[in-house]
Amino acid sequence: MKLYSMPSSGNSYKVRLLLALLGRELEIVDVEDSSPEIAAAKQAGRLPFGKAPVLELDDGRLLPESNAILTYLGEGTDFVPGDAGDRASMLGWMFWEQNQHEGVIAVRASLRSYENRRHLATPERMAELLERGHALLQIMENRLADRDWLVGDSVTLADLCLYGYTHSAGTKGGFDMTRFPGINRWIARIAALPGYKGSGA
Amino acid sequence: MKLYSMPSSGNSYKVRLLLALLGRELEIVDVEDSSPEIAAAKQAGRLPFGKAPVLELDDGRLLPESNAILTYLGEGTDFVPGDAGDRASMLGWMFWEQNQHEGVIAVRASLRSYENRRHLATPERMAELLERGHALLQIMENRLADRDWLVGDSVTLADLCLYGYTHSAGTKGGFDMTRFPGINRWIARIAALPGYKGSGA
Repeated sequence: MKLYSMPSSGNSYKVRLLLALLGRELEIVDVEDSSPEIAAAKQAGRLPFGKAPVLELDDGRLLPESNAILTYLGEGTDFVPGDAGDRASMLGWMFWEQNQHEGVIAVRASLRSYENRRHLATPERMAELLERGHALLQIMENRLADRDWLVGDSVTLADLCLYGYTHSAGTKGGFDMTRFPGINRWIARIAALPGYKGSGA
Repeated sequence: MKLYSMPSSGNSYKVRLLLALLGRELEIVDVEDSSPEIAAAKQAGRLPFGKAPVLELDDGRLLPESNAILTYLGEGTDFVPGDAGDRASMLGWMFWEQNQHEGVIAVRASLRSYENRRHLATPERMAELLERGHALLQIMENRLADRDWLVGDSVTLADLCLYGYTHSAGTKGGFDMTRFPGINRWIARIAALPGYKGSGA
């Protein structure tokens, strides 16, 4: 198997984090935004939706979508609950992440980080994303206020998935994380897991 | 089990369609947009993310997110592939639907349909959504040009999920569906499945 991974992307980092926690090594092809490597991978048809990450299976099949890759690599491990209701709840948070959280938290960070997107970062848009992002983080805060993990009694793919862009929501996204003590405790809990690697590692 | 379902919503329809195809009946609570019923369900804490559909399990647990509900009700049925790669690919299309397709195809339809959103439907926004929607539908068209189903050799949850807003993308969203013959054949294929019910049924 081979992982096409964008070093600066939270979606790619989620997958690298799961691999680190599983103590598993894969061949990784770095395809940074706007790099010759991502252009080559697109040209070779390795990024079906035009985005990283993509997992190339041993039989050559290409699996795009970070959260689908997490479920593939996570299947049969302790990161997927045995209970059917908990498993569906885990996927529910992961769909919520892609439908709500990523389009605000990650998008605001990308507008601040990537030079070629700066022209889209109007004051109105940045203010609107800030307000919406705080409301989304409040949903996570409410969930984590009296729980260690988003689903059940132990860490699942839902936590790793949402950690991807939440752990850097303050530094990269400019969100005020002092409002969210439950999230901050959860971030520290994930960073203390055996095998943990940060997004820059 | 009890399903909180919004009659006008493609996300709720996906779940009703799976139930129809499975020949399964659940208690359904209709919570139309802006209705007293949805206000009451929110007030009673039955819609954790403020949206329908939500599946209430027999033990009282609440499962939001249409695609998570599909995986819960679909588990162990023919709508979920046995092969791990196909299963992950199915989820990949479902994450893509929530991350890309729904935010354009469903949003354009909602801006045309709901009176209380009309002020957001500026000509610039509607034109941008039209262009982005055609590009997204082209991704589905490319996939379905020489295949009957999105994943593997039979209908899966990925097809039902994407059918939710694609089957009405022309009538409700205003997209030009004559460009997409592969999608149109696939729509007819789904409508011919035993037990099929339309979104108004």
